[in-house]
Order: sequence, then structure tokens, then C-alpha cells
Amino acid sequence: MSLITLTTDFGTKDHFVGAVKGAIYTELPDVKIIDITHHITPFNITETAYILKNAYKSFPKGSIHIVGVDSELSIENKHIALELDDHFFVCPDNGLISMIASEINPTKIVEINIHDRIQSSFPVLDVFVQVACHIARGGNLGVIGKEIKEYKKLVEIQPKVNQTQTIINGGVIYIDNYGNVISNISKKMFNEIGKGRPFKISARRYSFSKIYSRYNEFVDFSVPEERRRNDGERLAIFNSAGFLEIAVYRSNLTTVGGASSLLGMDYRDTISIEFETIKSPEFTTLN
Amino acid sequence: MSLITLTTDFGTKDHFVGAVKGAIYTELPDVKIIDITHHITPFNITETAYILKNAYKSFPKGSIHIVGVDSELSIENKHIALELDDHFFVCPDNGLISMIASEINPTKIVEINIHDRIQSSFPVLDVFVQVACHIARGGNLGVIGKEIKEYKKLVEIQPKVNQTQTIINGGVIYIDNYGNVISNISKKMFNEIGKGRPFKISARRYSFSKIYSRYNEFVDFSVPEERRRNDGERLAIFNSAGFLEIAVYRSNLTTVGGASSLLGMDYRDTISIEFETIKSPEFTTLN
Amino acid sequence: MSLITLTTDFGTKDHFVGAVKGAIYTELPDVKIIDITHHITPFNITETAYILKNAYKSFPKGSIHIVGVDSELSIENKHIALELDDHFFVCPDNGLISMIASEINPTKIVEINIHDRIQSSFPVLDVFVQVACHIARGGNLGVIGKEIKEYKKLVEIQPKVNQTQTIINGGVIYIDNYGNVISNISKKMFNEIGKGRPFKISARRYSFSKIYSRYNEFVDFSVPEERRRNDGERLAIFNSAGFLEIAVYRSNLTTVGGASSLLGMDYRDTISIEFETIKSPEFTTLN
Repeated sequence: MSLITLTTDFGTKDHFVGAVKGAIYTELPDVKIIDITHHITPFNITETAYILKNAYKSFPKGSIHIVGVDSELSIENKHIALELDDHFFVCPDNGLISMIASEINPTKIVEINIHDRIQSSFPVLDVFVQVACHIARGGNLGVIGKEIKEYKKLVEIQPKVNQTQTIINGGVIYIDNYGNVISNISKKMFNEIGKGRPFKISARRYSFSKIYSRYNEFVDFSVPEERRRNDGERLAIFNSAGFLEIAVYRSNLTTVGGASSLLGMDYRDTISIEFETIKSPEFTTLN
Repeated sequence: MSLITLTTDFGTKDHFVGAVKGAIYTELPDVKIIDITHHITPFNITETAYILKNAYKSFPKGSIHIVGVDSELSIENKHIALELDDHFFVCPDNGLISMIASEINPTKIVEINIHDRIQSSFPVLDVFVQVACHIARGGNLGVIGKEIKEYKKLVEIQPKVNQTQTIINGGVIYIDNYGNVISNISKKMFNEIGKGRPFKISARRYSFSKIYSRYNEFVDFSVPEERRRNDGERLAIFNSAGFLEIAVYRSNLTTVGGASSLLGMDYRDTISIEFETIKSPEFTTLN
Repeated sequence: MSLITLTTDFGTKDHFVGAVKGAIYTELPDVKIIDITHHITPFNITETAYILKNAYKSFPKGSIHIVGVDSELSIENKHIALELDDHFFVCPDNGLISMIASEINPTKIVEINIHDRIQSSFPVLDVFVQVACHIARGGNLGVIGKEIKEYKKLVEIQPKVNQTQTIINGGVIYIDNYGNVISNISKKMFNEIGKGRPFKISARRYSFSKIYSRYNEFVDFSVPEERRRNDGERLAIFNSAGFLEIAVYRSNLTTVGGASSLLGMDYRDTISIEFETIKSPEFTTLN
């Protein structure tokens, strides 16, 4: 039995999501449809890539992922279907795939060409559903499009490293539900550049000299609970997606605020890491 | 296997939706339950009708649609179950059905009368679930209610056409997730009244002389992308539901705003179309 | 076929919910996953308890309920799995269970000890999914943890009754989607203390001398609809969960407001009931 996921900017109030699900069930009564999200900021491809990249890997091999963000057909925005990492994606060729496929190349990509009959302002319903159901029935990609080798490149802004390998200049790519500020600096890059040296992370006027792997790792549980003052403390952490994140312990965006509001940080702001070169007084006092 | 959809104003935080789904699965472990939406503005019947009308048709024939909006039982608000367009609806008799059934008549309607045992402030859980499961098991409508011929009429405000057939005066019936402003003027009516004549659409202080069928249809893709200035442009379009819509190209309600905020338009505001009668100077300059 | 529910504070935008569902379907393709809610106020255990307590009972016996609120593992916040009321719960030992189990004792509780291999900032994905799938496959609780007898007690603030049994002092425990203000005073307690005596409910500067069982029970339907002025009226009701609730008839939080905004009431505010002792002038005028 096939599994189809949905990632869109449709919101959950309008009839769009219901209509798409109804159309899929009409074609394939036994399929499973799972919402990844419908709350992408309208037309935001970076956000789509971050969420989809971190969600799709949990799904079984062979799952089909429909993406309905910035999906209106144009001469510059083709519709494509592809196989990548043993998953299928049905989506616009708007750069999204280049962000997901940064480390893994697609096995096969086709430009969907079943549009001759379809003039649509709702391509997810009128085109993507048909394509996904075709794939779910075991159909070949070649039937619904012609193979292409190139797809639009829109490389996620990557952190920059200076020549002496002492500084990583990264940026904020996502703010999550708790207000946590997520950078594009991966644990992998941090380890490769840092090679275990002491470091200082700078985000606005705050700095951090340690990166945790759990949110409560810095809490001293030997202090009686009523005397601890940890809620609201800032910390740096490698999050479950493997990226450097600035968090506020037990934050609540709607009351005390999260890291994004407390640090005044937003999408695209700078987060940088400076690694120690020589034993400088500044660094020896850290950590 | 049956398919039951839910359209409510419950929101998705409270226990209401979970409780309803649990109760359905307890009765029918193999049913499929699909959310159309739980974000109807509380008690808003017009909104419910617009969303449900545009969603239900995508579902397979025989699907059962539960509506939990303004559903508390009273002498004036009976509970009904009906068959319409080969779909089943379980809902309050609050006028909703008259908006959905404007073109198609219900085959059979019953007034639900299994309430004798049930005094409830949560009728969707205590009554509608039972009725929907009865229908899903192939049960006859006659068993859960007595047949009625009349249902409450609450005709959606219809556009008015002047005697000389030169003006359609419509109104805003819905604002969607992108801030697009949707009118009650259908493509069908536009074609029947307009008969291909030139026209001018007025919405607040803006006017339009062309109606597109896709959002990006007006973009000149021969101009290099960096020199185009289309984002944020206003346009008129027949949306995927077949209604005249005022949109803002690639709008984003939370940043630059959508048509609703940029044009200052809201539910029930006026949108009118004036068709050319004689060659007037005003119209010949248009389009 | 098993049924797994999710109750979290993840929100529905991030990849968290999708990742968890994908992981479950990878292990168990035929399971059903139902969202109770993902909109718990971050880290709010009282809210979690209120929602889960009112939702889980509708689900079939044997259902497995994953709770992802305040679930990071620490020396003070163990992970537990338990059987209670013929349902299974996989959750942190943060006091939640003591609020759900106030009337029913768990049959068996284990402290999950499969963590030796897992250091995680996303325990719902990395630990709870494995545990839930183990239970769904019919596995024994003993395999994934060691049996414990005690769990953290965090008793929901209970209403206080004075010595002469004339006053119940309760508090607001939840504000629902319509802005209704829900207290911790149950119908059961009201009946046991009140024993049918006249009473006066006080909430801020408003008082009520009658408790309804349906929202529209106070409406006089013999008055023609256009002359009724009931929308926006305050009333006291025992809600479908069995708690005393202050509501506003046909309220709408986003326009006229709900009980919470109109009465200026919030979580933890006081709601009290005074019962008549001797025939006082004040009470005889009531009801």
C-alpha cells in the first residue's frame, strides 16, 4: 500500500487540502495520505526545503511526496517528478529539489508533460494528484513526462569559511514552533572546520562557548528545583536535524518569548563561529 | 470501506476533534476519516457552505460528510441527514444545505429522531457520529429519522443584475489563506450576462478590464526575471472554484499583505462588473 | 490493527509531526495514527491533561497514546509507559499521569530503559515511537522498561470546600476554542456539596444562579427570532466534559469576543459557588 505526503502553503482553513485528499482517495481508496505541513509561509522555498528534508527521511522507502508551494506552471516553473534516495517527489522545478538533493543526486527526473489537456490555477489538484497516483500504482515516470538531466539550482545560502579556517559565517534559515533560531551551520561542518578547537559563537550581542546535544544538558539537577533559575536561559545546541540552533530553555513564544523574539533574531540574520588559533586571553577564559 | 469527512468550527487545540475521531473508530475500525477543516469562523454558515461545496465533490461517491458548525439542537435547528449528488451529509438544518444544494436537489432528507435518549451540548459526538456510522454500515436513512421534504432556506446572497443587463453587483463571500478576495460572481453568470462584451470590474477604488485563468498569466516572461516587477500586482481571476476573485500576485498576508488587506476589502464588500452597452469613450480605452 | 494517537506541543508547521508519523508507518504500515492535538501551549502539563483526559476515552480499548509535551529526558523527568483504563500511554513522568489517573489507577507502569543507546533531543521520535510500536505489536511492557510503582504526583489544583460545606472555591483550568472559560468544578462535586440547594456562582463581577446543560437552553424560542437578543449573553453550563463552564452564547473570539475576553478571565482565575444555608433575602430572590 502506498503512502503519499503533502507539504503545502495552503493553510488548513480553505477547501484546498480537503479537495486534494478527496481526489487522491477517489483514485486510490487504499492509499495513506499524511500531512507534513500546510503552514509553509506562502511561496517560501527555503522553508519548504528545510521542513521536507527533515521529514521525508522518516518515511518508508517508496513514499511519494507532493509539494504544493509556488507550484503554478510557467515557462520558468516546470512541473517535475523524480526519484531521489528511494523516495518520489512531485513538485515544481523552483529550486526546491536542489536544496533537498544537496548531498544525494536524483536517480531519475522527468518534466511532467500531461498538461496539454489541463489549464489550471490549482495544479496540485489537477496535475500532481494524477502524477502521484500514477506512481503509487507502480507506473513508470517515463509515462508522465520526458526525462531531463538538469533541474533548477537554487542553492541554500551556505555558511562561508574564511581562508585561515578560523571563522564560519552562517545565517538563520528557520525559526521553529518554540521560537528556536536554526542556522545553516551543520554539526558536520562544525567538526570539520573546528577540529576540536575552543570556539566562540556570536549571535547578535550574545555569545556561546559550548554546544549542547540536549536542551536540559546544562541544568544542574543537584540544585533543588525551587532554587534553579534555568527557564529562559539561552543556549546553543545541535538540534535533532543536525544544525546549530540558538534556543531558550523551556521557551514559550506566546508568553515570555522564544530565542527569536528574546534575541531579536529573524530569518537570514547572521550567526558566526570563531575558532581559537593561538592561545589568546579571550579564549582561555571561555569554557 | 467508507469515508467520513469532518467540517467544523472546533479548532484543532481542544479535545473535540480527537474525541469525535475516537468515537468513530470505536464503532468502525476500518473507516477513513478526513478533515476538510476545523477552522470555520465560529457559527459562520456562509463560510462552511463555500468550503464544503468546493471540497465534497472531489471525494468518492458515497462519502459521508459530517458538519459541526452551529449544530446545537433546538426547535429551530433540527438535525438532518440527507443524500445529495450521491454523497451523504449529516448536519444541522441551519440553511447550510440550501447553499450547497442550489443547483442539485437532495434525493432524500430525514430529520434525525434518535435524540429521545440524548440530551447533549456536543451533538456531533453524541448524535452525528452514530448517524454517520449507521450510514457507513449501509443503513437506511429511514431508520434514524423521518423523511421530510423541506429544509431551511438561507440563500447565499446572490449577485444582482440590473434590468438592462449591463451591471452585475456582487459581494465578497470569502477571503482565502493568501488573502485573495472571492466574490459570489461565477464564471457562468459572467458569461451569460456579459456575452463577450468588454467590461470593467470595480472593487473599492481599483478597476480591472481583464479576467485571467491563471495567476501568472499576466507576467511577461520575456523580460529578464530581475527586471520584472510583478510581485504584489493586483489582478482579477476566475479561481479554481469558478468564482471571480481579486488576487495579489504572490501575496503574503503576514508580510506585504494579500488582496484583502492591500485593497482594504472584507467579507460582504461590493464587487461589481459593468459591461459596455454603446461604444463609450471610457470603455474603448480599456483592454 | 492498532491505533496510535499523538498529543504534543510541536505545532503543525515544523517537520516534527511528519517525522514522527513517517517513523511509525515505517515500522508499522497498517497502524492508524490520529492527531489529538499539536497545539498544546509549550510545556503546559495542565492543558495536556485536560485535553487528553477528555479525548482518550472515546478511543477503542487498547489504543496507544503518545504524549510529546515537556518530554526531554532528565534525572527528574523519566520516560514511562503504562496501562490505564485499558489504554496505553507513552509519556514523560512529569505529573501528567497523576492528573489523568485521578480516579483510575494504572494497572502497570514501567520506566522506559531502552535509552542506553539513545542520546536525543527529540525523544518522541527516537524513543516513544519505538515503544509505541512495540506495544502495538502486542509486546509486553516489561521488555522496554522496569516496573515501577510510583509516578510523579502533580495534582491538578482542586477546588476547595469550606468546613460548613457552603462554598466551593474553584479555578479556571482551560479556555477553549470559543473562548469558553472552563473551571475545575465538576458536576459530581457540585451535586455532592450542593445537594440541590439554591446557589450563586461568582466569576469576576458576574453571578449566575442557574447551570444549563445545553448552550441554547435559556433561549425563549416562542419570541420571534428577529426580536431575540441572546447572542453574547453570559451563561453557566456543565460542558460535555462534565465541568462548570462560563460561556457566552454564540461567541466569536475574533469579533465580539468569548467569555474569556468579555469577562476578562484567564487560566487560574477564581470561580466560586456559594450555596444557601438559611433562607436569606439574597438567595430567595434568585432563580
